[in-house]
Amino acid sequence: MTQLADLNTPTALVDIVRMQRNIALMQSRMNSLKVAFRPHVKTTKCLPIAKAQIEAGAHGITVSTLKEAEQFFAAGIADILYAVGMAAPKLRQAAALIQKGCALKIIADSVESASTIARFSSENNIKFEVWIEIDTDGHRSGVQPESDSLIEIGRILASAGALQGVMTHAGGSYALSTPEALQAMAEQERSHCVRAAQRLRDAGLPCPVVSVGSTPTALNAAQLEGVTEVRAGVYVFFDLVMKNVGVCGEEDIALSVLTAVIGHQAEKGWAIVDAGWMAMSRDRGTSSQSQDFGYGQVCDVSGKPMAGYLIDSANQEHGIIARTGSMDTAISKTLPVGTLLRIFPNHACATAAQFPEYQAVLGDEVIETWPRFYGW
Amino acid sequence: MTQLADLNTPTALVDIVRMQRNIALMQSRMNSLKVAFRPHVKTTKCLPIAKAQIEAGAHGITVSTLKEAEQFFAAGIADILYAVGMAAPKLRQAAALIQKGCALKIIADSVESASTIARFSSENNIKFEVWIEIDTDGHRSGVQPESDSLIEIGRILASAGALQGVMTHAGGSYALSTPEALQAMAEQERSHCVRAAQRLRDAGLPCPVVSVGSTPTALNAAQLEGVTEVRAGVYVFFDLVMKNVGVCGEEDIALSVLTAVIGHQAEKGWAIVDAGWMAMSRDRGTSSQSQDFGYGQVCDVSGKPMAGYLIDSANQEHGIIARTGSMDTAISKTLPVGTLLRIFPNHACATAAQFPEYQAVLGDEVIETWPRFYGW
Repeated sequence: MTQLADLNTPTALVDIVRMQRNIALMQSRMNSLKVAFRPHVKTTKCLPIAKAQIEAGAHGITVSTLKEAEQFFAAGIADILYAVGMAAPKLRQAAALIQKGCALKIIADSVESASTIARFSSENNIKFEVWIEIDTDGHRSGVQPESDSLIEIGRILASAGALQGVMTHAGGSYALSTPEALQAMAEQERSHCVRAAQRLRDAGLPCPVVSVGSTPTALNAAQLEGVTEVRAGVYVFFDLVMKNVGVCGEEDIALSVLTAVIGHQAEKGWAIVDAGWMAMSRDRGTSSQSQDFGYGQVCDVSGKPMAGYLIDSANQEHGIIARTGSMDTAISKTLPVGTLLRIFPNHACATAAQFPEYQAVLGDEVIETWPRFYGW
Repeated sequence: MTQLADLNTPTALVDIVRMQRNIALMQSRMNSLKVAFRPHVKTTKCLPIAKAQIEAGAHGITVSTLKEAEQFFAAGIADILYAVGMAAPKLRQAAALIQKGCALKIIADSVESASTIARFSSENNIKFEVWIEIDTDGHRSGVQPESDSLIEIGRILASAGALQGVMTHAGGSYALSTPEALQAMAEQERSHCVRAAQRLRDAGLPCPVVSVGSTPTALNAAQLEGVTEVRAGVYVFFDLVMKNVGVCGEEDIALSVLTAVIGHQAEKGWAIVDAGWMAMSRDRGTSSQSQDFGYGQVCDVSGKPMAGYLIDSANQEHGIIARTGSMDTAISKTLPVGTLLRIFPNHACATAAQFPEYQAVLGDEVIETWPRFYGW
């Protein structure tokens, strides 16, 4: 059996026990809220993990690229939502998937894009299933639930036989940090999206699907009346940003980067490791939160956090570990050259994307190597 | 011939004319300073580009991972410096390369690592070529040129027949922005590294190689007396960080991300594109410089910068374009859905790393697709 000490560093570790616990927690919440669950697989881009989510009860998946859709469909997952607005050339790629039997859903949030989809549909004799993206928190894309254009978009899509629902993502929830604020945001996400669906139905248009979600709102929603499904992604690994948002503890973080100490600047209290920003990513999501974790929380090789030790700064293949508060003047003895460490990431989606594969671990034993998709 | 409009977005474009001009400029400077040039290929991780650098006159390459060393050696490049400190397990990997005929050079900056290398060398009957890393600007790794441990490390390596030189990287130059400061930093990098070499020689130790470099110092050094070779990486593409440092103009930036407009929030002056942080990377290197370019400078599809238009914020697969200064209230007409744009990156090394390949372009024609290495 491969041990951690046998691995090349840096490498991405997935703690299987924590991952399965995170999957079970979310699925159980969705079951008790009586909604279907469609995990966003952009966090992991990994077939064994998506399969674990489906085995736990998920219905279909959400993807962030058509490449993910192609790869997961080729592996036998057919019910896929592509949750990013379409550019015209991507309609050809989406149509090819549908023609192969993929139950692909796409989204639109403007008259312009709805018209493009309807025209392509008619010219190419292909039927799309389209959900209208609703803006429920002002953070990114989507049409306002009370806008005239919602109905206009609905009519264009319905006339092409394409209108199937509405969807939203309250990504603004990532900026919150109290249960009250998160619960209020979850209710805002729900009620605004349900309202958009109601307006479409009141206009005589079909809207069977009402899809909402983000990890923080999914874990804080008090009720989901009118919602048919929820989407969430990062919950499967969790990370330091989610810890600061208040939806997990460090003991829930399932993704870490295994790294080795390669040197010191002892008089500065620095240990240098071989996990730089190429391994951790440049994501500094905790820099604007209550606790700034630099480029990551340092843990011993078993995954136990070392209080105060962070990757304080990073070059491409060098991470600089320092103890916050008081300098560790004996750091070359605390962490001698060759010491193996695990680093918790700020943002699991960004850190995972730096690696071609995960080492799935139970304790310090590597059980399997799981490849992940890459590129577009 | 493939046109830009035929490509999937987002994708990484390399402007061949600019890249060749950047390569020629650096090589010509090195020739006139009478030093050998060893480009750092961590920026591109791309064989056709490394070959272009060698054809222009480079002697050998610098790598940031042993995976790069393995890939480039397999492709016929044998003279390779691995410029990151060693962890013990990596010595096995390095030894395997040397046994296959790779003229691999490794580095050490502590008594601990030098002893580990010497012990491994003796136990495994393998001869390493080691350069001692010198700290010339306090930014990261390396031993102080005036320290006692420099001589101790030198003796340990020399007794294993491994001592071949000294090397340094004045990465602190990235924080500067005037020709005077850059020239002073280049002289500091040179003189401190030459001094370390002299101290080793005065102690009766061999030190044929004196290797220095970073893109800003390489382009600003007034003279390089005592230096035998220079290393630099990002100059081959340049980027917005380097523009702020003052060593290139926007018209020299050879790497851009091709993206498509997928939507708007017209009342906010936003256009949404399909290049988010997964494409641009999370690197915000210009945020602490004189001009902050957000997640990148927006250019039209021909590569001409659109003054004031930046990727202002980014989600995983969504970039939000806004005009700085005054909101573009007509942005849905300026940049309608489907518009193709090129985005200049903050940091070429980080943005390039997000892509499995480059599209090498002449004007708007795609000449070739160049794969790049990935992972460790």
